[in-house]
Amino acid sequence: MTIAEQLARFAAHPGPPDRALAVMQISLLDWCAVGIAGRDEPVAKILRAQALDEAGAPQAGMFGNPQKAPARMAAMVNGATSHALDFDDTHFAHIGHPSVAVIPAALAVAQLTGASGAAFQQAALIGAEASIRVGIWLGRGHYQAGFHQTATAGAFGATLAAARLLQLDQKQTKMALGLVSTRASGLKSQFGSMGKPMNAGYAAANGVEAALLAGRDFISDPNAIEGVSGFSATHNGAENMAAFDGLGQDWLFETISHKYHACCHGLHAMLEALGPVLPLDCDAISRVVIHTHPRWMSVCNIARPGTGLEAKFSYRLTAALRLSGYDTGQPDVFKDAICRDAALLALRDKVELHPDDSLSEMQSRLWITLRGGEVHELFHDLDQPQSLTARQERILAKATRLLGSVHANRLWQNIESNATPDCLMTYLTIKSAE
Amino acid sequence: MTIAEQLARFAAHPGPPDRALAVMQISLLDWCAVGIAGRDEPVAKILRAQALDEAGAPQAGMFGNPQKAPARMAAMVNGATSHALDFDDTHFAHIGHPSVAVIPAALAVAQLTGASGAAFQQAALIGAEASIRVGIWLGRGHYQAGFHQTATAGAFGATLAAARLLQLDQKQTKMALGLVSTRASGLKSQFGSMGKPMNAGYAAANGVEAALLAGRDFISDPNAIEGVSGFSATHNGAENMAAFDGLGQDWLFETISHKYHACCHGLHAMLEALGPVLPLDCDAISRVVIHTHPRWMSVCNIARPGTGLEAKFSYRLTAALRLSGYDTGQPDVFKDAICRDAALLALRDKVELHPDDSLSEMQSRLWITLRGGEVHELFHDLDQPQSLTARQERILAKATRLLGSVHANRLWQNIESNATPDCLMTYLTIKSAE
Repeated sequence: MTIAEQLARFAAHPGPPDRALAVMQISLLDWCAVGIAGRDEPVAKILRAQALDEAGAPQAGMFGNPQKAPARMAAMVNGATSHALDFDDTHFAHIGHPSVAVIPAALAVAQLTGASGAAFQQAALIGAEASIRVGIWLGRGHYQAGFHQTATAGAFGATLAAARLLQLDQKQTKMALGLVSTRASGLKSQFGSMGKPMNAGYAAANGVEAALLAGRDFISDPNAIEGVSGFSATHNGAENMAAFDGLGQDWLFETISHKYHACCHGLHAMLEALGPVLPLDCDAISRVVIHTHPRWMSVCNIARPGTGLEAKFSYRLTAALRLSGYDTGQPDVFKDAICRDAALLALRDKVELHPDDSLSEMQSRLWITLRGGEVHELFHDLDQPQSLTARQERILAKATRLLGSVHANRLWQNIESNATPDCLMTYLTIKSAE
Repeated sequence: MTIAEQLARFAAHPGPPDRALAVMQISLLDWCAVGIAGRDEPVAKILRAQALDEAGAPQAGMFGNPQKAPARMAAMVNGATSHALDFDDTHFAHIGHPSVAVIPAALAVAQLTGASGAAFQQAALIGAEASIRVGIWLGRGHYQAGFHQTATAGAFGATLAAARLLQLDQKQTKMALGLVSTRASGLKSQFGSMGKPMNAGYAAANGVEAALLAGRDFISDPNAIEGVSGFSATHNGAENMAAFDGLGQDWLFETISHKYHACCHGLHAMLEALGPVLPLDCDAISRVVIHTHPRWMSVCNIARPGTGLEAKFSYRLTAALRLSGYDTGQPDVFKDAICRDAALLALRDKVELHPDDSLSEMQSRLWITLRGGEVHELFHDLDQPQSLTARQERILAKATRLLGSVHANRLWQNIESNATPDCLMTYLTIKSAE
């Protein structure tokens, strides 16, 4: 069976299990919250302005504006907007951000087709699961070569979510996947620019577009995923076929990681490890030693950050922030001023970072030495199972921090009760007070 | 100077020379003719239906319908429609079809901005020239790896044409090129499906989209063409820097090849070589030996085609068609019935094809042996210089064959007199009699 055949069959899954759907609901709350919070980022404003200028059939809503746009455009705007703060969920095995690529495609097509809330959430889950599988199939070599799985694998997942909601048949779904194979794109070289969130928007838009055209009986190369000159062959895919084992039975989406801190995901194990020891008298700290997976040494190890954005990629300053009692879950904390705060800088200079092969990318180990000689040894593994309740509580707390408690709670009630996509959109399209 | 800097500077070229502009006018007539002729191909109908469904600001026209669409969508529809018959121009060094990717982007943005006919034609030429340079820079390795220069290099050219018409400044133009680096895509595996013309449509749409967003001060990675994890590094680019030698001075677009026959370009040198010996008494032919560049043996050597589409990729049957007096410049000739015509099949079986290293891809050599023993030796080189007048006459004859003489002549008068893009569009948007 080709990958397109496997995925097309998966798109017709009769109904994902409750636990996977419950995790999708948490991701959906998270996605809505970070999208609303990101609605006034420059990339969001640029895309919204372009969408309003192009106008068109009012098929689906956009963050930050009550006007609707064609589904493809809405998916693009919402994908980029929800990734603008880089505060959305991550799947480490997929090596990317599934929700920002897939949920916008599912939501836009759900609005277009008038799907129920339950149908929308199922499609989003199936698309996200597919994108994770494709990301694993493409593998680390694809990422190292310079491709951004969020954009590439994400487009396949977005296509599948859209295909399900459009009720495409098996042949049409394969054609949609064949078409998106010649359309999916996205480079890591955009990291640090608006091009990064744009990659998520492109993935979402590509999925909607491919599914809509396939629904009109567009003929593509149905074997363009793994065939000769296909997506994998041209994009350094590892073609790890085990990636599709248990598709439809096991839900890798359940192991998605949510961000509780508004900074690089590579810092999160360290920040979580600090939790149990807080609050701590900073003046009493004489030394902080952090061990992390070697990969992070080149990703988020800016020793002396000069801007708030750089601070989000600094082990030393972020540790100092958290030890000083700052709420690192609040994006506003990462202002340029923190890079000039004398007390923070003094603490930052007591922090040492070391690579440690014995740790996974999801783990961090710390030793905090106090003046009296006392040492706190701390450890956290992001991969350790967390109860659904605990995850839900933390994401609700995050949403509350971003949106205020009234809005966050209403949003969560809507999601939990499978509110219709249109109803959900009324919360997302509220304009900011600009 | 980075490539983006070189191209941004080229976008501001004060005015291309007359000869290059004259070749662009011929390509423009050709592009209009094949687009109008392709307006009822399935891929064209699917895209037009999608465009009409999405609707939106009436910014630019589409082949085959009087309604306007947003510029991005119009560029996509027109790019795919004009490549649907695969009857448009080719640049062999670029390894692709510049006009179908670049002209639709230029025309859509020219309509959006109300540009003059001269400004439109200049922008189309500058974009097409840029796409040729980028295609050469990416090189044959890029193509062999599975990428379709029409789509990839084409997107950069489309971006530059759109950027010029939008009067973006140097920084914005570089940002547009940086953005399209994460967006450009297109695989050869789509050849033989609607995905092939779609690649041209995507390139045109990507260029319009990137330029419009850059005009709103979108920030991308400005070094994403040749930088680390940039377009070339990820897409098997040869980075042949000589490709940009003489940019702004020499116009490689002048060496573009037009199709005078409605079949694979690999067959054209052979078909042209046959010209001088026609008409010939087919019954008198005992043997036809054709020598061609080895590359074509795997591209257009279907020995016993079963459909009209396959016949377009068959040296043997196409030679038999032309020797039998069929007009291979007429797309309608390539019907399935020709594959079952006894007289044609008898002649086809007298044709032998051999690879010949001593020939270029643009050359073909033939020996036609008659029953009496007489041998005609024939040769043609598509690369041999052709006067502007001869090219213009043949493209006008082609347009006349496709559109009728009244329409073809009016179109040519409009193009020659630099008619406004809106005026030109009135010819292209006429509905067919469906």
